[in-house]
Amino acid sequence: MTELTLAKSLKIITSALAKGKELNLKPLCVVVLDAGGHVKASQRQDGASMMRFEIASGKAYGALAVGAGSRWLNLQAETRPHFLEGLSAVSGGKIVAVPGGVLVRDRKGAIIGAVGITGDTSDNDEACAIAGIDAAGYTPDAG
Amino acid sequence: MTELTLAKSLKIITSALAKGKELNLKPLCVVVLDAGGHVKASQRQDGASMMRFEIASGKAYGALAVGAGSRWLNLQAETRPHFLEGLSAVSGGKIVAVPGGVLVRDRKGAIIGAVGITGDTSDNDEACAIAGIDAAGYTPDAG
Amino acid sequence: MTELTLAKSLKIITSALAKGKELNLKPLCVVVLDAGGHVKASQRQDGASMMRFEIASGKAYGALAVGAGSRWLNLQAETRPHFLEGLSAVSGGKIVAVPGGVLVRDRKGAIIGAVGITGDTSDNDEACAIAGIDAAGYTPDAG
Amino acid sequence: MTELTLAKSLKIITSALAKGKELNLKPLCVVVLDAGGHVKASQRQDGASMMRFEIASGKAYGALAVGAGSRWLNLQAETRPHFLEGLSAVSGGKIVAVPGGVLVRDRKGAIIGAVGITGDTSDNDEACAIAGIDAAGYTPDAG
Repeated sequence: MTELTLAKSLKIITSALAKGKELNLKPLCVVVLDAGGHVKASQRQDGASMMRFEIASGKAYGALAVGAGSRWLNLQAETRPHFLEGLSAVSGGKIVAVPGGVLVRDRKGAIIGAVGITGDTSDNDEACAIAGIDAAGYTPDAG
Repeated sequence: MTELTLAKSLKIITSALAKGKELNLKPLCVVVLDAGGHVKASQRQDGASMMRFEIASGKAYGALAVGAGSRWLNLQAETRPHFLEGLSAVSGGKIVAVPGGVLVRDRKGAIIGAVGITGDTSDNDEACAIAGIDAAGYTPDAG
Repeated sequence: MTELTLAKSLKIITSALAKGKELNLKPLCVVVLDAGGHVKASQRQDGASMMRFEIASGKAYGALAVGAGSRWLNLQAETRPHFLEGLSAVSGGKIVAVPGGVLVRDRKGAIIGAVGITGDTSDNDEACAIAGIDAAGYTPDAG
Repeated sequence: MTELTLAKSLKIITSALAKGKELNLKPLCVVVLDAGGHVKASQRQDGASMMRFEIASGKAYGALAVGAGSRWLNLQAETRPHFLEGLSAVSGGKIVAVPGGVLVRDRKGAIIGAVGITGDTSDNDEACAIAGIDAAGYTPDAG
């Protein structure tokens, strides 16, 4: 498995924030988790509110939890909420099931990490995560 | 950034409770949090029930978490409940997503704290929080 | 049982903070709990650090938990730490077992609440709690 | 109060990691928290173990909790362990009381955040935190 390095993680964050600036979005927080769900790097822009780290992390963690971008989790939450409730419970309350948590896949399709972004609309958050992962040369999987 | 002082916090509480008396509301609890979500001051009126401190604090904490008054959170809970469930989980169970948690903004619009009130209807609780923040010379943001 | 009113709670806080000023202490946080361990009122002075509310509350909660001022808990922690560890666990992690948590007793000796103070040395914190309870016409019990 | 910006936070992290490289230390994790204890930015170097983010964050959080660098907490843990146990409990288990959590003070001495570092010895971790804060033009307070 390719390892998601700190250098690549910072490339993802920088590119995601550049996308946010290009789209004139509100202040964002970007969190990159490794394949085991542990924080590799994070940046919260000035003006982004208090719990944005936890929200961004929760999107990325949810994606890793089920091996699908958090957009898929969002759909699950709408169609069978009891699944998300159970998933949240067994995760110890670490999941936020709305779009913006995107898997990072290497060239062979293996999951090597996940990116979570929050601060603007969930759709815009997701677009920035995809842009960041693309820029780092990996394949985004938004669900 | 302006710091929300203890003196201003007490002015907010006193004015909010005066508003409650003027409107002939039930006994209230008022909690003022600083910008980081930490308790600056609180008062629970005689007759207000046991957990009113936690409820008031939870409204204010939720507002700070996302940078919007808790009325916005209330709407989110109605339209996409799984977002609120996730937010509550990653906060460690610190959020109460109903109206009555109002951000305190300084003249430049920066969030310098939040006020949470509970005891009467959520709308009345919110009206008191707004009155208190106004009286202290800051801008209330109810969501 | 006498009820510890909000008016009396504020008298305790104001008097305790006046004592702190008289003794030239560092910024303090004062929390008043009712007989059931629920927050009645609190004030954290400007410059008192982030978690002072939780520490002050933890001293007062510990005092109520065992019906003795937190100085007694401090002694227990030194002589049989496993008791404090168990107590902390069954309380759900709500207790800070150092001096500065003082019971409020009415004229008949009944426990009607507790005051917790933190910010300076534990001994000085306790002296302010005692001064505040005295000023309100109740009997302090520091353990 | 000065706000600890993302730009300054990144300057702290980059400088702290440069110090680690200069001293030939093991892979480090650096976390920068704002004055309210919320994550502003973080970087975990390749090879740093799984929970380094949580450890670094716990050092910084502990420093902010009591307004003293985590070296002071380390001393407290040795001389009156029950205080640290209580503090950990009321924090919800967020504190790691060993050196390496250093307060960031502005020119007026106000606490505007904290830096936590882990990966090498606690003394070396702390040296890097101090170097990072110095490089950003702020005053480190290691306790």
